Amino acid sequence: MMRKVRVELGERSYDITIGSGALSELPEGDGKRTLLVMDSTVKALHGARILASLGGKPEEVFTFPAGEASKRPETAVDICRFAARLKFDRKCRFAAAGGGVTGDLAGFAAAVYMRGIEFIQIPTTLLAAVDSGVGGKTGTDIPEGKNLIGAFHQPAGVFTDTRLLATLPPADLRNGLAEIVKTAVILDPELFELLERNKDRLVSSPDLEELYPEIIRRCCELKGKVVSRDEKESGLRAVLNYGHTFGHAVELLSSYTLPHGQAVAVGMAAAGELAVLRGVWKREDADRQNRLLAALGLPVKVPPRCLACDLVNAMRGDKKNVGGAIRVVLCSGIGSSNLPEAADEKELLAAWEAIR
Amino acid sequence: MMRKVRVELGERSYDITIGSGALSELPEGDGKRTLLVMDSTVKALHGARILASLGGKPEEVFTFPAGEASKRPETAVDICRFAARLKFDRKCRFAAAGGGVTGDLAGFAAAVYMRGIEFIQIPTTLLAAVDSGVGGKTGTDIPEGKNLIGAFHQPAGVFTDTRLLATLPPADLRNGLAEIVKTAVILDPELFELLERNKDRLVSSPDLEELYPEIIRRCCELKGKVVSRDEKESGLRAVLNYGHTFGHAVELLSSYTLPHGQAVAVGMAAAGELAVLRGVWKREDADRQNRLLAALGLPVKVPPRCLACDLVNAMRGDKKNVGGAIRVVLCSGIGSSNLPEAADEKELLAAWEAIR
Repeated sequence: MMRKVRVELGERSYDITIGSGALSELPEGDGKRTLLVMDSTVKALHGARILASLGGKPEEVFTFPAGEASKRPETAVDICRFAARLKFDRKCRFAAAGGGVTGDLAGFAAAVYMRGIEFIQIPTTLLAAVDSGVGGKTGTDIPEGKNLIGAFHQPAGVFTDTRLLATLPPADLRNGLAEIVKTAVILDPELFELLERNKDRLVSSPDLEELYPEIIRRCCELKGKVVSRDEKESGLRAVLNYGHTFGHAVELLSSYTLPHGQAVAVGMAAAGELAVLRGVWKREDADRQNRLLAALGLPVKVPPRCLACDLVNAMRGDKKNVGGAIRVVLCSGIGSSNLPEAADEKELLAAWEAIR
Repeated sequence: MMRKVRVELGERSYDITIGSGALSELPEGDGKRTLLVMDSTVKALHGARILASLGGKPEEVFTFPAGEASKRPETAVDICRFAARLKFDRKCRFAAAGGGVTGDLAGFAAAVYMRGIEFIQIPTTLLAAVDSGVGGKTGTDIPEGKNLIGAFHQPAGVFTDTRLLATLPPADLRNGLAEIVKTAVILDPELFELLERNKDRLVSSPDLEELYPEIIRRCCELKGKVVSRDEKESGLRAVLNYGHTFGHAVELLSSYTLPHGQAVAVGMAAAGELAVLRGVWKREDADRQNRLLAALGLPVKVPPRCLACDLVNAMRGDKKNVGGAIRVVLCSGIGSSNLPEAADEKELLAAWEAIR
């Protein structure tokens, strides 16, 4: 059974199709030329199947080396130049098959090729399925920082075939689970309970036929609603950054060697401590969040050799800061959260110290 | 006296301020940090004055070598990296002071820096004042073609100080005049008559106090209305491409050594012949168009050594073609034009031959 989530964006809308076998729903044969963008790993594992489902041509595939290092403006330019040499016009589309790097990169290329063409997403990681594949944020990294060059560009459709997740190593599942727990903590107590009940079968022998499609559907629906109401992140959408302002600091100090999901888990633990310190969140709720993260194999402590003062300094560089103040999202219950609030250095240090 | 044109775009709007001394209207001291982007020529001629009018800091100026060769995605990335090193956040803005290259480049950088920040335009050429400075098209060139990487990104304000035009060589004035005549031919018989009446004082000793501000105001108003009704060029806006489908072919065959205005003038002459051939335009109107262009020192004949078949081939690569057909805008009177129509090879060849 395919699950569908419609994301409404002003006058436009698009569908996210989720399920085992969702590749069969790809717009094959609608007459649009499609440039398929994949990294080397996805190409090796799923390339032939995805290309066949798209009805695409092998010469209309752009492949790049797997890894965050490829997520540079230069690679996006290479995609556009490749499309231009194939004489792709404004009515063609790009398809991103892969994880967050591929979606961000190909989505950005689609946002700027001929000032914007259609693109579709085929997430092959859990993180992309629940997070980067929904919301229309695209971006590339420059040496000065991550995602500093990008665009808002909504996909025309997202096709999440959960069978593709079968090849994911546990660490990649955990990356997605961190964002799933985040979504539950800020927005949905029922999803949180669903995760708690099933915590032992999310990483080992995951159920890709029913449980995961349902979890992904729920996350997409929640994120889709937030994005609908605030496409350009002027307000509400900022709650999705829960755990991220703290998490980015951990990522930065690790020189981005720490997986994103682990950094977000640590960030959620730190944000939880700050909320408890301020008296807006109950200790037991923060503990419940941390217990679920830990049960899924995610870290809830600062990595060794990270000093609290270095972490606070790293938070200062975050692109979401406005006018120099560090702003963080705090929860007030399992499933309820508030817009970012300014936090001072002293309480940030205390929050980091509390999870050492 | 300052003239103002308001451009309405859905829920947003912005003002174009035109006149001798318009620099004094720049948003100096509104608390927003502004990165000023200029090429080497504009910096030498007007840099200090513009920076002072902006209340900007010398270290917050990005300068690049003058010329179309700088209009590459790499330069836009350099602008973003420069801004990131200065710790510019989402609430900062970029200001483009210059001609079309600077506006397109800095506008594109503003469109993608942190997924889009504010930008303002300070046109220093006539062409930028009437054309590239209005409409929100930004873009960069790749070896495969011009403007193939870009974005729609509307400015927050345009400040056209006609005093800055005093340093323009006649060839640059003619570049702008070609677009002005184009605007008149497709949209405004009165503007066409105004140009006819003043044709002898548009290039030599131009009146920058009254005549040019009025012409620029009128062009901005006309183009602004078209853009308001069709921001993303799905329909109406295509009439602004009058002369351009033919003109780009001439530009391409000259390897972009021919100034844009000259190419557009030749393109208008060719489009005129096609309209006459089809019987939709009176011979005398086409001649009247060509007489005005010639009086302003613009060419209305195919450059030597350009073969008609090569020109038709060059038209095939145009980014505005959809599904392979060459589509051109034709006039049906001075001041009235139609949406692009498909043209076949035979009549295109005949149109080119008619102006050899």
